[in-house]
Amino acid sequence: MSQSPNATNSKKAETYWQTHAQLLKQAQQAIEERSYWSPYPEMPSGKIYGETAKEEGEKAFTDRLGACFTLANHPSNGEMTSDEASPFGATLNLSYHTATETQLIAAAKQAQAQWQAASIEARTGICLEILHRINKQSFQIAHAVMHTTGQSFAMAFQAGGPHAQDRALEAVTYAYNEMTRTPANALWEKPMGKQPPAKLAKSYKIIPRGIALTIGCATFPTWNAYPGIFASLVTANAVIVKPHPTAILPLAISIAIARNVLAEAGFDPNIILMACDKKGAEITKTLVAMADINLIDYTGSNRFGQWVRENAKTPHIYTEEAGINPIVITGTDNFKGMCGNIAMSLSLYAGQMCTAPQNIFIPRDGIDTDEGHKSFTDIAESLKKAIDGLLGDTARATAILGAIINPDTLKRIADCANKGKVLRASKPVADIDNPQIVTPLMLLVEKSDDKIWMTEQFGPISFIIATDNAEQAIALAGASIREKGAITASIYANEEKWLTQAETELAGAGALLSCNLAGPILVNQTAAFSDYHVSGANPAGNASLADTAFVANRFRIAAIRKPANP
Amino acid sequence: MSQSPNATNSKKAETYWQTHAQLLKQAQQAIEERSYWSPYPEMPSGKIYGETAKEEGEKAFTDRLGACFTLANHPSNGEMTSDEASPFGATLNLSYHTATETQLIAAAKQAQAQWQAASIEARTGICLEILHRINKQSFQIAHAVMHTTGQSFAMAFQAGGPHAQDRALEAVTYAYNEMTRTPANALWEKPMGKQPPAKLAKSYKIIPRGIALTIGCATFPTWNAYPGIFASLVTANAVIVKPHPTAILPLAISIAIARNVLAEAGFDPNIILMACDKKGAEITKTLVAMADINLIDYTGSNRFGQWVRENAKTPHIYTEEAGINPIVITGTDNFKGMCGNIAMSLSLYAGQMCTAPQNIFIPRDGIDTDEGHKSFTDIAESLKKAIDGLLGDTARATAILGAIINPDTLKRIADCANKGKVLRASKPVADIDNPQIVTPLMLLVEKSDDKIWMTEQFGPISFIIATDNAEQAIALAGASIREKGAITASIYANEEKWLTQAETELAGAGALLSCNLAGPILVNQTAAFSDYHVSGANPAGNASLADTAFVANRFRIAAIRKPANP
Repeated sequence: MSQSPNATNSKKAETYWQTHAQLLKQAQQAIEERSYWSPYPEMPSGKIYGETAKEEGEKAFTDRLGACFTLANHPSNGEMTSDEASPFGATLNLSYHTATETQLIAAAKQAQAQWQAASIEARTGICLEILHRINKQSFQIAHAVMHTTGQSFAMAFQAGGPHAQDRALEAVTYAYNEMTRTPANALWEKPMGKQPPAKLAKSYKIIPRGIALTIGCATFPTWNAYPGIFASLVTANAVIVKPHPTAILPLAISIAIARNVLAEAGFDPNIILMACDKKGAEITKTLVAMADINLIDYTGSNRFGQWVRENAKTPHIYTEEAGINPIVITGTDNFKGMCGNIAMSLSLYAGQMCTAPQNIFIPRDGIDTDEGHKSFTDIAESLKKAIDGLLGDTARATAILGAIINPDTLKRIADCANKGKVLRASKPVADIDNPQIVTPLMLLVEKSDDKIWMTEQFGPISFIIATDNAEQAIALAGASIREKGAITASIYANEEKWLTQAETELAGAGALLSCNLAGPILVNQTAAFSDYHVSGANPAGNASLADTAFVANRFRIAAIRKPANP
Repeated sequence: MSQSPNATNSKKAETYWQTHAQLLKQAQQAIEERSYWSPYPEMPSGKIYGETAKEEGEKAFTDRLGACFTLANHPSNGEMTSDEASPFGATLNLSYHTATETQLIAAAKQAQAQWQAASIEARTGICLEILHRINKQSFQIAHAVMHTTGQSFAMAFQAGGPHAQDRALEAVTYAYNEMTRTPANALWEKPMGKQPPAKLAKSYKIIPRGIALTIGCATFPTWNAYPGIFASLVTANAVIVKPHPTAILPLAISIAIARNVLAEAGFDPNIILMACDKKGAEITKTLVAMADINLIDYTGSNRFGQWVRENAKTPHIYTEEAGINPIVITGTDNFKGMCGNIAMSLSLYAGQMCTAPQNIFIPRDGIDTDEGHKSFTDIAESLKKAIDGLLGDTARATAILGAIINPDTLKRIADCANKGKVLRASKPVADIDNPQIVTPLMLLVEKSDDKIWMTEQFGPISFIIATDNAEQAIALAGASIREKGAITASIYANEEKWLTQAETELAGAGALLSCNLAGPILVNQTAAFSDYHVSGANPAGNASLADTAFVANRFRIAAIRKPANP
């Protein structure tokens, strides 16, 4: 707990803290109130980000292409890796230095001691400055996200930029709150009857877990990785970031920014490190199973999530895995709005969002709507037509769908087409010659076909499932959440009793429940500072972005007592 | 999330909440300030507890002896168990109903749904009322603790009564704070440019993990079990309490009180259940490995702790295991006070406290003191003499030492006597014919004898270890904490540099560090609302009594969003 003068007296860190303390205060209020708040504007507008920001961002991105991405003073074993490919045709040809696990741990250990010695305010100020600078690079990061994940530019900007930054700030805020809940000092004075009181001067200091590992994913490299990275960083841990081999660039840019801020403030930039690898030769398992890794944040499949949970030496693991998100339709007073809303939910980023619906449960006798009774077939056909309409225009379709990033997903779409009655076939968008830009597949299945619909079918694949009645529709959806996990759930109902049942069985199982969405807000979307992303209460993940449990065990309290008697 | 009217409208629960809300407010302030505070008086005084409380408590205890302890409406398989024996000669002859794991889980599941439907205030009010009534029974519980654990009456009253109640209230307070950090409702209103704002009405509800298991220990049955029991209970989980087979009564009395309060308030008493078993035929492993157990609190050995951590289906495990607590002596300005303080720490409850020191590291060249230079031998002899003096009087010795509760501990004392140079032999206290009331064994060993001192030797066994110098003494103590765990550590020093090194290496390794204790406060003692008991940062346990991390993952948030557009 000795303090490194170079670190803690850093004028820069102090300045960062003073600059951003007010923002933190607003964030503290936001997580308490949970109404709408976002400090990082989601509009890719020159009026907000500066008239030249768009062009500069694009240029910064293109300038990186075809070159080796280098992090100054980062450990390296002299080898290179390269695995990224744009589904939109851009030639990336990027490569990254790799380092051995031993090099990474050694560098992290050395850097961490200094970081631990810094004050809470210094670390928080630095994290907020990193976010400030990342925000300024939102255009560059958006291009990096777009070309590594297949997101359209608009989505890559929002989800990969400001929304990811929101989630990072949220995590920093929760962590700051928890670190400062215990006072630095206390005078403990116990009455001792006729004797003089016993007095102890107590002090409490934050001690981190040590070294954190964040395992990134292929679809939302920044959004899903930032919360763990920043939560671990601000609580004084060194962080090793292991990007997905096909989506390194967005995190590499972010890490470069973080290392610059650290170095400028007088800290060892190796407080944050990057572990790059190649598909098929991942370093992930090696890192996960090391005793020196004390915290793990993971986003990815349940299968590998289970491996991580079973093989990590540390018990401190925060996961977002996968689930099968249900929609239940029991009635609506806005049939057209409902169909349009669901069509958008199924189409957005071609179902590659962890929040996208997969299973749509509908009573086989149909439902009552503002347009009168609709049969099961009416509803299915209307949903199909809503998607056809939404994606009828090529430019709009491309902007909504983005591209399929993983060849396995294209294969899955083809495989699934044989596993039910095809309501809507998936096909490449007209007029553009890109087999990775495809429309959603919709299948009609029976509830007894649970071999197919009770499994996550990642991608633009959905199942319309006929149930005996509304009650059973909700019950089946609830059972699927408890058994296989879900991040979101959606219910359409005219009758209060179905909403109540859904609250108990869907929200109660830990899926974020949206009721009667028929406008611009989608079940897929969650907002930082208001919605908890993943509840941690079902198999879709064990942690929530972000809540107290996400941060409170990333550090511990060291306590010291000394007699304070005069 | 539907609400049971009988439960949530319970007038009693509302009254309890109103009665005790002010106490909770004080507790909230106390955990923020961490100065001295205790709502449950630790003096077994008639002036505080009522003139007849002492006799009534003793009578209530003796009235229970020789009988079957029955919990009304508790599941039972018709069998009985009995394994308690007083080391002070009282004939207990108590027996308890047992139940199968299936019966326990079924009863807990049924009761839990109703408990979940109650409001946060109703659950909190009930928990506070339970503690209020437990406090009134402190004398009865003290006798129960004394005769099952071997603690002297004075200690059994304090540690088994008010201090345990303090720790329970502390856990309730942390949990209440966390449950109420999220508002019940929020209006989310997002600007949509030229479109009208998107409005969502959001609601957030507490959903518990489900069923909690608390595994009690043999030495501090209430103190160590209450925090987990109350933290799980107030966060809406049903709780199965598995007392140690030799220390059932103190928890049985507590559980009976809790069930009465629940039943009176209109709840199913099976919200809290007791799983009794017999030594050698424990039900613990079966329960731990059940998928229906969603939270586990465990106090006990590292060996069984490891088994729990490896075999539990739930990842939500809170343990206090064991460590080897060091004392480092590098100098003192109060040699006599230091020796007296250490003598008391080693003697109290015959070293059967998890906070008792085991290893005393002293530079072989001696130290500087207010009485001049003291050689290694001087110090060792002075510590021996301090213990001899402290325990020279039979009545005082008995009051301090209590009795050894586990025959294995007596065997360990005998075994260890051959494993070093005996500085002070352990022997039965003079003038009383009780082989379970014995004085501490002290051994002189070399630092190279780490096979013996680097292992926990539970009981009144300590090692005085000669080191090359002060720096090495601290370094060895620090290494022992990191490798084997420690709950407490103690340093005596005249020079600031040794205090600083101890802060880094002992407190920094997660042992609660006490500096230069020479008065009535012992390193063994931790105070609720001020000291964190166990840091969770070394092998002595993964959780802290109590902090945010101890409570925040015992429940999750269910969230619901509905359009709020006009």
